[in-house]
Amino acid sequence: MEVELKEMLNDLESLKRSLTDPSHHAPIDQLQLRVERLTSLASSGPVRRSKVKDMSAEVVDSNPYSRLMALQRMGIVENYERIRDFSVAIVGVGGVGSVAAEMLTRCGIGRLLLYDYDKVELANMNRLFFRPEQSGMTKTDAAVQTLSDINPDVVLESYTLNITTVQGFDTFMSSLKDKSFRPNKEGSGVDLVLSCVDNYEARMAVNQACNELNQTWMESGVSEDAVSGHIQLLIPGETACFACAPPLVVASGVDERTLKREGVCAASLPTTMGVVAGLLVQNTLKYLLNFGNVSPYLGYNSLKDFFPTMEMKPNPQCSNFACLERQKEFLLVKPARDAALKAKMEAEASSSVTECPLHLDNEWEISVVDDSEPDRIEAKSADALPEGLVRELPNADEFQKSPTEAADATIDDLEDLRKQLEALNS
Amino acid sequence: MEVELKEMLNDLESLKRSLTDPSHHAPIDQLQLRVERLTSLASSGPVRRSKVKDMSAEVVDSNPYSRLMALQRMGIVENYERIRDFSVAIVGVGGVGSVAAEMLTRCGIGRLLLYDYDKVELANMNRLFFRPEQSGMTKTDAAVQTLSDINPDVVLESYTLNITTVQGFDTFMSSLKDKSFRPNKEGSGVDLVLSCVDNYEARMAVNQACNELNQTWMESGVSEDAVSGHIQLLIPGETACFACAPPLVVASGVDERTLKREGVCAASLPTTMGVVAGLLVQNTLKYLLNFGNVSPYLGYNSLKDFFPTMEMKPNPQCSNFACLERQKEFLLVKPARDAALKAKMEAEASSSVTECPLHLDNEWEISVVDDSEPDRIEAKSADALPEGLVRELPNADEFQKSPTEAADATIDDLEDLRKQLEALNS
Repeated sequence: MEVELKEMLNDLESLKRSLTDPSHHAPIDQLQLRVERLTSLASSGPVRRSKVKDMSAEVVDSNPYSRLMALQRMGIVENYERIRDFSVAIVGVGGVGSVAAEMLTRCGIGRLLLYDYDKVELANMNRLFFRPEQSGMTKTDAAVQTLSDINPDVVLESYTLNITTVQGFDTFMSSLKDKSFRPNKEGSGVDLVLSCVDNYEARMAVNQACNELNQTWMESGVSEDAVSGHIQLLIPGETACFACAPPLVVASGVDERTLKREGVCAASLPTTMGVVAGLLVQNTLKYLLNFGNVSPYLGYNSLKDFFPTMEMKPNPQCSNFACLERQKEFLLVKPARDAALKAKMEAEASSSVTECPLHLDNEWEISVVDDSEPDRIEAKSADALPEGLVRELPNADEFQKSPTEAADATIDDLEDLRKQLEALNS
Repeated sequence: MEVELKEMLNDLESLKRSLTDPSHHAPIDQLQLRVERLTSLASSGPVRRSKVKDMSAEVVDSNPYSRLMALQRMGIVENYERIRDFSVAIVGVGGVGSVAAEMLTRCGIGRLLLYDYDKVELANMNRLFFRPEQSGMTKTDAAVQTLSDINPDVVLESYTLNITTVQGFDTFMSSLKDKSFRPNKEGSGVDLVLSCVDNYEARMAVNQACNELNQTWMESGVSEDAVSGHIQLLIPGETACFACAPPLVVASGVDERTLKREGVCAASLPTTMGVVAGLLVQNTLKYLLNFGNVSPYLGYNSLKDFFPTMEMKPNPQCSNFACLERQKEFLLVKPARDAALKAKMEAEASSSVTECPLHLDNEWEISVVDDSEPDRIEAKSADALPEGLVRELPNADEFQKSPTEAADATIDDLEDLRKQLEALNS
């Protein structure tokens, strides 16, 4: 539009020159003024925020990071600004992946890699993120458009490809290996891979890539009836990989592609997908910024608001060769790691008694209820309730054991695992 | 811009008429053509989807409701289209309220009433929904702008006011009473009120209004350290009202307004707020569309991924007069309601044995794992695991008792309640 208006100004100028009678100049001058006004109107467009060099904790309305940096003052996160160093890959930019991408973007993640081959349709409008006017765009393009407006500080890379094709998988692998964002990083070029795909084949492709690269990842999924979901942490060699414990739908031999046939569609809800994305990114933040406990598996049964958790050891008979390699490596390093963990926990337990408060000046008397540390240390005394008081609800620790305890309670046998999954679904 | 261009066309026309030499007409004709082209460019703008008269279950990419109507075929919801009859009021359009509004809009709710007095700031960008270019707009205006683009079928009413002022409260009350959307509706003009405010005063105002109107509502909240949250169902006279069980922060006498002083801000995260909004709207859908179990209280401790639940009876010494009135009314109707509920459950238990399948034609062999009914009916047999198999996780029913059982287990005494809250927070 700006070009058209500029040409119009030129046309008016030459018309004015061609008119010898000066009485005709006044209306042309007026027209030129109008065009200039329109030019400034057209160029203003939507206001975009400028990039922010350093994250500041300053409490002013114009600071997009003040409420995130406050996590430090509240004693939740030690160094929030580290988030700018991290790269997260999101595979599948649908109902869960798009919301996860938006959350990480708003949290100021350093770099996001987005993978999808699909296009936005009006049929996606029952989930968050995409807008009707983006129909027909690729999901990756539409996501980059929205996310770069929301936070121009995030480095966005989008890959419009299908990771289950040979070529797509190759590009996926090399993008994960690329270390140009943080050349000194150990391991691959990304800190975490989030699988937000909706089918078994794509999950197996992510599993293959992460096993080969020894890359920690998180799996997510939502049921066909839209009312259940889950997230799962997968550390190659240390936890079960996706091939170690195939889901029941695969075990029972149903071809999931029948669901994709014309005239049949699975149900979905913005609520279930929003909750799963929220749980997934919350665990991502805990994992990257080192606070709270990262859940090895967390289910969401929305009909009952029930949230099962469990841990799964790798399967020594896993069909995935790279998984078996990672298992061997893990067994070699495990004794040293366990010893270091034990020493660290002992050191923490002895130092916590004499620990100073986080903030000596607490002018506004903000007090945070610390609900993580005390009951690890004082588990015994916290369990003893005052006389006459009965605990109606079980304590959080009755579900979530500490890492060392839980390791002993994990499931070793695949057949047991299947039965556990069945029990969880019924 | 369209107006400016129209005026420009008129100016060009009168200039042409004033020029007697026809050789000058050609450049003016050309300019008029340019302006006409610009007019069509400017009017096209972003494509908006047109309104949809009836919700269809047809599986085509252009149907924004196909994945929601699929909830019927999946046997989750009996009649999804009823959602168009419902009015929901959302008080507070911040980190939780805006996302709740977007979810309900995408679900195709009939009518949304939005209340907030605040403006969008860049400091809000660490939560979902608002965009940087909306900075400076009122939250209600910005929300209506975004929501009407997402789903033009939803009737949106926005109230830019503070419900804790005398005038604001009056407008709030009369808007809740207004029945023009569904004149035959019983009770007030809305089906549910969602409180998504961030302070005690505003919650007490919602509580007062709902007690006076005998209006069921849901409360939501997120902790100052951004890592915990909760939702709660409040039915006047039947459950504890907000004044029956004041939160600990009030009981301990800390003035929450100190937190709002310049230079100090609470932390917030898009994840916690997204999860709380998702849990809130999922329970809203269960309540309105009559599926699953609506949680009386559901907490979210994100550091441990722990989700406590509980029920609270009303306090016979409540300081709120309207609450005491509703309690008296409830005691009068309770015996008849209990008898009706018992008869209904008995009838369901006997009919469920001979019930036919939901879909006789299941061409694509879709099978849904039903995780609500079986264990209510077959609780005994499901608990008996095969020999040698130990249940690592507790069953959902061990936390969430059926409505009749749970009613007996609720807490009667306020002092006990405070201790329970304390225990949950520690």
